Amino acid sequence: MIIEELREIVGHDRVSDDPAELYCYSFDSSYIRGNADYVVRPQTAEEVSRIIKVAAAHHVPIVPRGSASGLTGGSVPVKGGIVIDMGSMNRILEVEVDNLQVLIEPGVIHRALNNELMKRGFFFPPDPGSSDMCTVGGLIANGGSGMHSVKYGTVKDYVLALEVVLPDGEIINTGCKAPKTSSGYDLTRLFVGSEGTLGIITKARLKIHPLPETKAILVATFGRIEDAGRTAVTVLSSGVVPAAMEIMDGSAIDAVQKIDPSLGLPDVEAMLLFEVDGYREAVARQVEKICEICERFGGRAVVAKNKNEEERLWAARRLVGVAITRLNPGKVRVYEAEDIGVPIKQVPFMLKKIQEIGKRHGLPLVTYGHIGDGNLHTGIAIDLKNPDEWKRVHAIKDEIYEAVLELGGTVPAEHGIGVIRGSLMSKAHGGGYEVMKAIKKAIDPDDIMNPGKMGM
Amino acid sequence: MIIEELREIVGHDRVSDDPAELYCYSFDSSYIRGNADYVVRPQTAEEVSRIIKVAAAHHVPIVPRGSASGLTGGSVPVKGGIVIDMGSMNRILEVEVDNLQVLIEPGVIHRALNNELMKRGFFFPPDPGSSDMCTVGGLIANGGSGMHSVKYGTVKDYVLALEVVLPDGEIINTGCKAPKTSSGYDLTRLFVGSEGTLGIITKARLKIHPLPETKAILVATFGRIEDAGRTAVTVLSSGVVPAAMEIMDGSAIDAVQKIDPSLGLPDVEAMLLFEVDGYREAVARQVEKICEICERFGGRAVVAKNKNEEERLWAARRLVGVAITRLNPGKVRVYEAEDIGVPIKQVPFMLKKIQEIGKRHGLPLVTYGHIGDGNLHTGIAIDLKNPDEWKRVHAIKDEIYEAVLELGGTVPAEHGIGVIRGSLMSKAHGGGYEVMKAIKKAIDPDDIMNPGKMGM
Repeated sequence: MIIEELREIVGHDRVSDDPAELYCYSFDSSYIRGNADYVVRPQTAEEVSRIIKVAAAHHVPIVPRGSASGLTGGSVPVKGGIVIDMGSMNRILEVEVDNLQVLIEPGVIHRALNNELMKRGFFFPPDPGSSDMCTVGGLIANGGSGMHSVKYGTVKDYVLALEVVLPDGEIINTGCKAPKTSSGYDLTRLFVGSEGTLGIITKARLKIHPLPETKAILVATFGRIEDAGRTAVTVLSSGVVPAAMEIMDGSAIDAVQKIDPSLGLPDVEAMLLFEVDGYREAVARQVEKICEICERFGGRAVVAKNKNEEERLWAARRLVGVAITRLNPGKVRVYEAEDIGVPIKQVPFMLKKIQEIGKRHGLPLVTYGHIGDGNLHTGIAIDLKNPDEWKRVHAIKDEIYEAVLELGGTVPAEHGIGVIRGSLMSKAHGGGYEVMKAIKKAIDPDDIMNPGKMGM
Repeated sequence: MIIEELREIVGHDRVSDDPAELYCYSFDSSYIRGNADYVVRPQTAEEVSRIIKVAAAHHVPIVPRGSASGLTGGSVPVKGGIVIDMGSMNRILEVEVDNLQVLIEPGVIHRALNNELMKRGFFFPPDPGSSDMCTVGGLIANGGSGMHSVKYGTVKDYVLALEVVLPDGEIINTGCKAPKTSSGYDLTRLFVGSEGTLGIITKARLKIHPLPETKAILVATFGRIEDAGRTAVTVLSSGVVPAAMEIMDGSAIDAVQKIDPSLGLPDVEAMLLFEVDGYREAVARQVEKICEICERFGGRAVVAKNKNEEERLWAARRLVGVAITRLNPGKVRVYEAEDIGVPIKQVPFMLKKIQEIGKRHGLPLVTYGHIGDGNLHTGIAIDLKNPDEWKRVHAIKDEIYEAVLELGGTVPAEHGIGVIRGSLMSKAHGGGYEVMKAIKKAIDPDDIMNPGKMGM
C-alpha cells in the first residue's frame, strides 16, 4: 500500500489520504481543479527522494506544491497522485551577506525571506504580487518576477545553485557559490521555470542585493496612450533605469476610479507610475530626467514629496487587481490571457489592440502592467456559470495570444504555463517545443513529475 | 563524395579539403590540435542546415568555429569531420534601440558590434579580453563574460533569443523579443554555453544598454592581500556596484614591473583597480565611498584625474597577460588552471593558496582577475618540450581545481570546458553531469555535434 510506504518515510502525521484534507490540495488560484490521492509534507531532501522512489515504483504522479498561489493550475493534481507539500521545508539556512547570497529551503514565504534580509540591509529583488503568500520555491519553479524586474531582473537572474531531487529519486546539485560560471550546460536555469516537471527543488542558493540608499515615486498622466508609450521607451533608452515603471490604461484608471472616487483620477487614456532608487543624487537626476521626458510627450508628472504621498500615488496601481473583481459583484475574475509580454515599443499598440478585442467580444478588459519590461496583465471578470461568457473569454484569449506572438512577444511573461497554457506550447515554440519534450523524456522517461503541465 | 555534396550547397569557393587550408583550422588559442577533413563557410542558416544533414547522413562530426580565440580546444576538430567556419555570417541585421535590442549573425566580431552600437549611444556590455578578434557567436557558445560582468552580467544575461540549427538539420527559434518570459524550458540559456555540442547558432537577439554618462578609474594598493579582499567585499556589500573591480596579486605586480619599470609599481601584496560609471553625481559618490573603504583597510587609493591618468592606471592591468609570456622568452604560456571562480569572500584565500601551490611545484604563477565576481586568472609559462614542466603544470592544475571545488567554486568561470576541462565534468557536477549527458543524447543522439567537447 502506498500510504503505508509513505508513512514509513514521514510518520503518520505528515501524510494523509483523508478526503477532507485532500480537498484542500485540489486547487490553486486558477479555475483548474484536480484530485490528489495522497498528500505528504516532507522535511528533508532525503524524504523527498524516498517519496519519489515510492511514486516511481508504483507509477503514480508526483505534484510538488508551494502555497498554490499560481494562476495556471501548475500545482493542481489533475492526474491524481501524490501531492508533495513543500511548506514544511521553509528554513533560511545561511545568510552570507559578504558573498551577497543566501541559502534557503523552497518552502520559505517570499515576504519572510525579505523581512529577514532587510534587517541586515539587503533584499531579494524579484517581487511577485503574491509575496505575502507565495513560496520562493514556487516563484523559482514558475520563473516569476514582478514589478521591479525592469531594473533588477527576474528570479531567473537570482538563482546561483539548486539542490534538486530527480524523477528517479537521485539528489543532484546544480550551479555553484561563485557569482559566475561557464561550466557545462546551465542546469540551474533549466530547472528554474520547469514547474516541477523535471524534478523537485529542495534547496536554492540565491543572490541578494544591498538596499538602495533612497527611492522616489512619480506618476504621470497622458491624454493619449501612444504618448505614454513613447515616454516609457524614451526613458529607458535615455539611460534611466527605473526600479519600476508601471502602466494603467483608461480601462484600469476607470475601474479604480469607480471603486474609490476619492482618488480623483483624471479621465485620461494612460497613467505611468515610476519608482527610481539608488544614491540620493542619482535619484534626483533620474526624477528630473523622467519629468522632462514626460513633459516632452505631453504628460503631467507629479513627484511624491513624502511617504504618505508615495502611498497615495501607488494606491491606484495597487487597487487595480481588486477593482476588476469588485466592479461587478456577480462576476469572478478568470485568469486567461492575463499575462503577456511584448517588445517594449509595442506596448501602446498592444494596449489598444486588447481594448479593441474586448469591445468586439462584448467583455470589458482591464489592462495594466509592467511597461518597463513589456509585461501586460489583463483582467476579465465573468459569470463562471455562463457558457457563452466562457466562449467569449476563449475567443478573446486566442486573439490576444495571436497578436502577441505576431509581435515576437511571449505568453506568459511571468505566470508560467501550467495546465491553462499547455495547448499554446506548439504554436509558441514550434520545433523548440519538440526539443523541450525530448529533454522532458530524457530526464523523466516515465512522466511521473507533475504530468499534464507545460504541455508535457 | 562528401566534398561534392558540400559543393552543391555552397559552391566551389566556400568549401575545401586542401591540406594547407585545413591546417589553418587545426587549432585554436590553446595547445589542443586536430585535423579537419573539410572546411566550409556557409552564409545562411539554410546552408548550415543542409551541411549538417550531409554530415548526419555520413556520420561525420560537425565542428562550428568562430575566430578560434578560445582557450580550451572547443573549436578544434579533434575527431576530424567538417569544420563550419561561421565567419562569413557576420552581419548586424537589426539595431532596435527603442527596444534595447539588436539582431546579429554569429560571426560578427565583438568589437565591430560595439563600434556600431556606440555610434548610437549604446553598447553590448559583455567584454571578453579577445574583443578585437572573437565572434559574438563564439562568446555566446562559450558563455563568456569579461571585466564588466560585476555590474553588467555575463553574455548569458544578454541573449533574448536564438536561431539554432539542430543536429538533424532542423532550424528552430528559442526565446522571444519581449524582455522577459516564463514560457517553457529555457532553451535559449541551454544553448548559450553549450559550445556547439547541441546545435549551431545562426542568429542571436541580444539586449543592449545605453552608454553611461561618465566613468571614473581608481587604483588602490595594499600591503596585505587580505586587506584588498576585505575592501572588495565591503565595497560590494555597501551598495556600490563598480562597473569593474580587478585584482593583481604580488606576482602580477612584480611581473608587470619587470616588463615596464617606468610604471613605478610599489612592492605590495595586492592592487585593486576600480571602474565606476553612471550619472556624474552617482560616480562621485561611489568614488568617495570606495576611497573611504580602501583607507579603512589600510589601502592607498589614487583617482584618475583625466583620460591620460586613466590610461596610466589601467596600464598595469593590461600588461599582465603580456608580462607572463615576456618574462622568460624561452617559455610559452599554457592555458591550464587559467580560469577559476570562487565566492567573492574567498578570493584572498584563493590567491594565497595559488601562490603556495606554485611555489611547492617550483613554477611561478602570475595571478590576477575579476575580484568583483570571484573570477581569477592564473598564468603559467613553461618550456612546451619539457615533460617534467608539463607534469608540474598538471599537478598544479589538479590542486587548484581541488581547492576551488572545495570552496563551492567553479571551473571554469568564463572560458568554457572544451577539450581541456572535459575530464573535470564528473567531479564538478556529479549527478548533474549525468543529466547533461542525457540532454546531449536526447538532442544529438548520434553525437555528431562537436564531439569530444565538454566531456560529452
